[in-house]
Amino acid sequence: MTLTHPERSTTASAPTTTDGPGTERLTTLGAQLRTALDGDFAEDRARMRATFPAEDLLRDPELDVEASREWTLNRLLSLNGQGFGSAGVPTTANAGSDPRGAVLTFEMLSHGDLSVTIKSGVQFGLFGGAVTNLGTEWHHETFLPDITSMKLLGGFAMTELGHGSDVASLETTITYLPDSEEFEVHSPTPGATKAYIGNAAKDGTMAAVFGQLVVGGRSHGVHVVLVPLRDDDGNDLPGINTGDHGHKGGLLGVDNGTIRFDHVRVPRRMLLNRYGGVDESGTYVSPIDNQNRRFFTMLGTLVRGRVCVGGGGGIAARRGLSIATRHALRRRQFPAAGRPDGVLLLDYLVHQKRLLPRIARSYALGFAQNLLIEALVHVQGGDESTEEDQRSLETHAAGLKAVQTWFANESIQEAREACGGAGYMSENQLVEMRRDVDIFATFEGDNTVLMQLVTKSLLTDYRKEWGELDRTGVVQATARVAGESVLEATSAGIMLGRLADAVRRRPEETTLVDRRWHALMFEQRTRHSLESLAMRMRAAAKSKGDEFESFNALGDHVQFVARAYMEEWILSAFVDALETVEPGESRDVLERVCSLYALQSIHDTRAWFMEHNRISSGRSKAIGAQINELCRELRPHALPLVEGMGIPEGWLGAALLDD
Amino acid sequence: MTLTHPERSTTASAPTTTDGPGTERLTTLGAQLRTALDGDFAEDRARMRATFPAEDLLRDPELDVEASREWTLNRLLSLNGQGFGSAGVPTTANAGSDPRGAVLTFEMLSHGDLSVTIKSGVQFGLFGGAVTNLGTEWHHETFLPDITSMKLLGGFAMTELGHGSDVASLETTITYLPDSEEFEVHSPTPGATKAYIGNAAKDGTMAAVFGQLVVGGRSHGVHVVLVPLRDDDGNDLPGINTGDHGHKGGLLGVDNGTIRFDHVRVPRRMLLNRYGGVDESGTYVSPIDNQNRRFFTMLGTLVRGRVCVGGGGGIAARRGLSIATRHALRRRQFPAAGRPDGVLLLDYLVHQKRLLPRIARSYALGFAQNLLIEALVHVQGGDESTEEDQRSLETHAAGLKAVQTWFANESIQEAREACGGAGYMSENQLVEMRRDVDIFATFEGDNTVLMQLVTKSLLTDYRKEWGELDRTGVVQATARVAGESVLEATSAGIMLGRLADAVRRRPEETTLVDRRWHALMFEQRTRHSLESLAMRMRAAAKSKGDEFESFNALGDHVQFVARAYMEEWILSAFVDALETVEPGESRDVLERVCSLYALQSIHDTRAWFMEHNRISSGRSKAIGAQINELCRELRPHALPLVEGMGIPEGWLGAALLDD
Repeated sequence: MTLTHPERSTTASAPTTTDGPGTERLTTLGAQLRTALDGDFAEDRARMRATFPAEDLLRDPELDVEASREWTLNRLLSLNGQGFGSAGVPTTANAGSDPRGAVLTFEMLSHGDLSVTIKSGVQFGLFGGAVTNLGTEWHHETFLPDITSMKLLGGFAMTELGHGSDVASLETTITYLPDSEEFEVHSPTPGATKAYIGNAAKDGTMAAVFGQLVVGGRSHGVHVVLVPLRDDDGNDLPGINTGDHGHKGGLLGVDNGTIRFDHVRVPRRMLLNRYGGVDESGTYVSPIDNQNRRFFTMLGTLVRGRVCVGGGGGIAARRGLSIATRHALRRRQFPAAGRPDGVLLLDYLVHQKRLLPRIARSYALGFAQNLLIEALVHVQGGDESTEEDQRSLETHAAGLKAVQTWFANESIQEAREACGGAGYMSENQLVEMRRDVDIFATFEGDNTVLMQLVTKSLLTDYRKEWGELDRTGVVQATARVAGESVLEATSAGIMLGRLADAVRRRPEETTLVDRRWHALMFEQRTRHSLESLAMRMRAAAKSKGDEFESFNALGDHVQFVARAYMEEWILSAFVDALETVEPGESRDVLERVCSLYALQSIHDTRAWFMEHNRISSGRSKAIGAQINELCRELRPHALPLVEGMGIPEGWLGAALLDD
Repeated sequence: MTLTHPERSTTASAPTTTDGPGTERLTTLGAQLRTALDGDFAEDRARMRATFPAEDLLRDPELDVEASREWTLNRLLSLNGQGFGSAGVPTTANAGSDPRGAVLTFEMLSHGDLSVTIKSGVQFGLFGGAVTNLGTEWHHETFLPDITSMKLLGGFAMTELGHGSDVASLETTITYLPDSEEFEVHSPTPGATKAYIGNAAKDGTMAAVFGQLVVGGRSHGVHVVLVPLRDDDGNDLPGINTGDHGHKGGLLGVDNGTIRFDHVRVPRRMLLNRYGGVDESGTYVSPIDNQNRRFFTMLGTLVRGRVCVGGGGGIAARRGLSIATRHALRRRQFPAAGRPDGVLLLDYLVHQKRLLPRIARSYALGFAQNLLIEALVHVQGGDESTEEDQRSLETHAAGLKAVQTWFANESIQEAREACGGAGYMSENQLVEMRRDVDIFATFEGDNTVLMQLVTKSLLTDYRKEWGELDRTGVVQATARVAGESVLEATSAGIMLGRLADAVRRRPEETTLVDRRWHALMFEQRTRHSLESLAMRMRAAAKSKGDEFESFNALGDHVQFVARAYMEEWILSAFVDALETVEPGESRDVLERVCSLYALQSIHDTRAWFMEHNRISSGRSKAIGAQINELCRELRPHALPLVEGMGIPEGWLGAALLDD
């Protein structure tokens, strides 16, 4: 399936009521909103929806661990056979990489059972990705055909029991033995045990193992080597000791396990040596001299996984919100004046506020995810790209993964509660989805740590430009320029900056739904919090006390800056996307959705705006009322808004939506 | 087991390092904090900890639905045989009710598998409670012995598919048939099907069924009748049609199901007729003339369930926070200056802020729960009590149930994330606990609806006093008095009011840890939001538009008032409890814990305080820094604080705490 070359356009973009996949019928507005939200990928996504094998989409929640694993493996084998698995991973060394196909496929898989999605991510994204991105021609020719056909299932053995987020401190050793031209892979301590590794407990017969490469007694930092795990009967090979994590909070279909290595030997060529290896003479060679830079280059190839997981989280949130909103459009409770049969749940303001601002946020995140996929395609798709592009991609992938997966957790939970007792029944899917998505906040990088990466990256930009100025100089200079320097990484920021400029002098003379004012508030939240953090960092560096404690005290400020920046980037993406939508009803609705997203984001941190004299207390009070008003205005469009989120009703699989 | 007459004191209150249950060893401070938090129930709770059968405490998460149900039933049978089941339910008509024992037992059961806890709640609290509180002597004599011995298992069939929170609109009919002196129980529509009923899918052979009582063609509102469900072989009796909800988000050990009635007849005496029934002549008789009042009186007897569920949620939160905090005191990650082996997780400020403010809130909720139990004992324990006492109890039980169960959900989730990937493994208990506690936010009253009840009750007080004054009069009068009228329901409010008075004139001249300032802020948050809501309500009532929409627009204001009031009541409870703690280290630590609770609560709504000119923007900024400082100060006491929460380490059952 060639995703980048659509064979035919689909009906989803038609301006009239249409049939989507199967018997899906959409309102005209719903179809338009869907096309807008799908953005540049609208045709691909519509075609994938039309061809995705939707029977057997969801796993029976009563299956136990063993049966879940079997079902998941079989489902993925079937999907892979139909083009929805290895898409994006080259089958041979000569085929190009297709990051666009990889992400869109992952997102499409996220419309169904998430164990299948994550198992595909382990096999194709992580294991296949390591071989593709860190290996060289021999690895590609030898392993990629079997990886993409799923003859060879493998794990991605990075995390160790003792070392989760701190990859640089991994203890596993990969020691070169010159006499036999082999590597010896070893777990020197219990803490070095590889942990939580997908495909390790049962299905995997090989793993891409991260460890400290030691050549001639000298350590060259973290590298990756392919290590066979099991024989054809599924028994651990000599020196391999796998364990099974058994039952988990969710994702029961993924066989996460542990691996310990006891002096396991593999041939020299099993090292994935694109960025560093040992030549025939037994000498360490690498195209990257600086060990630190090499480390981050190798980790940087993992960025696709974060784009995928964030996107998958976003889709899961849409599924949850779709179920709860469709339910709230059917369910009545408590009679009221003029409503003897009871009030529709979605007519209660309190209920609207549980769902509509989250739908607005789903749209905003969707536009940002589109932008991120484009950035990924630019960097990994064969275009010319700069190191700056790569770093910008990594920053936004980290931030958007954290923001989307946190959002998935809290919005599916809200959807569950909004469906009351029915929401708790597994047949209505919300609890299963919530369980599966829980760990999205941790894997592919703990969200809190990822947000630190975002801020670190912003500070690097900042220091580069202003590191030499004194404190007063910094304040003056940054007031003029630093905001732009932060935003320049994305073209989206230009539009936002222009909007902000237009109202900079008299911000409170605008209405609360004036996009220029939103732009200014989002920009100021990022800029001021970043500047003050930089100053506090500088002071901390100069202080004589415990250095760790000095920086430690800034921990929540670091988190705030990352959130502020990501919110601004998301708004940028939304504003840019709006420009591409033709004037008319769908544009009008999307403008309101954008305002609801922006105002809710400002509202959530309105205390900060007041504390920094960016918003008066009177204006702050008015924001809540304006959010209520937007909910009222969007309430009649609730069904089209749900349709626009792109999850076909028949795929939701929630019993409470059956008639 | 007689809980109200402790047989011996325990070692938990001793001022030196002590042995708790089994081999538990506590720090001196931990033991003191535990005694303080256990409050007036310290001896009972210590004895229960020492005697609670702690082997087989937690269910194997791999058990399927059927095996989970079997395990749960057997465990509850075993616990009941050892005095930890029906405690608090009288075994005969003559034995007194023991609400204190009922709640303390429920809380103790919450230290283990929550399916067992909830099954006990269904059997003893709801089914047994309905028979006890709504039935009369014949019901007590006939059924209580078998209910308390678990020979007769029963359901509490209130909720219907079409009617969750709206009990008054239940459709099931209970029609009197004078010829045969029977009642005919019937489900006239699919929406009338009883749903989510514990013990209905499998174990229950009887149910207490809520329905509209019809006598001589006239409806007398909701009443409750006992209806046999199954024969000795477990088959549905004629006219009964039970269904099974199967797999749920959690609580797999509880057999929730549906029940439909097809013209089922039961003898006249099966109606629980304490508040209304049919006499031998076929005439409806009730000690309460007003139908509405009768309805609320009958529902009022359910208050104990809310006290239990809130308390159980509070205990679950403590278990989750105990696991995550103990883990953070062992786990190191990322080396730093002066910390070559890595930094202890709990030394990171960001990590402290995930856990310590929640521990502080756990303490605050614990003191409030103690107060609530006392109020329950006062009303249901045989003392003289007024209708005012009953209403105050209902209000606080509703609010504290909502606040504690929401807190349980979010704090166990935070604990899960704070343990990273390990937190997701079922063997570490957090995900199982999180799944089980999810529905606590919905059953025994949807939390959002419960919070509406709190505000409604406050407005009733308010209207009673000031309903006749004009708008200006109201403002003036309430400025002087209304706050007190709201608070007078609890003696705790008096202390808080005095503290607030002392700084009313110059609130910002206090420090941020000055209890008087906390008291003033909490009081003003409640008082002002309540007053402005009352004014908006009055305006809504006078407006000519759609009456529903006028009130609907106030939905989030209603929620805010309830939260503000509950926070104030919780602070009152904490402040009162502090008075009873001897000066010394534990008192000092608890004062800081109280400040951390209070400041975090103010911080969470600091936008409101600024919007209403109660806190300046400068002072608001300082609150965040003060919270950080309190975390630093409490960090060295993290272990004693965890011990104080009262969950013996050996009971946590988390593999990641094994050495």
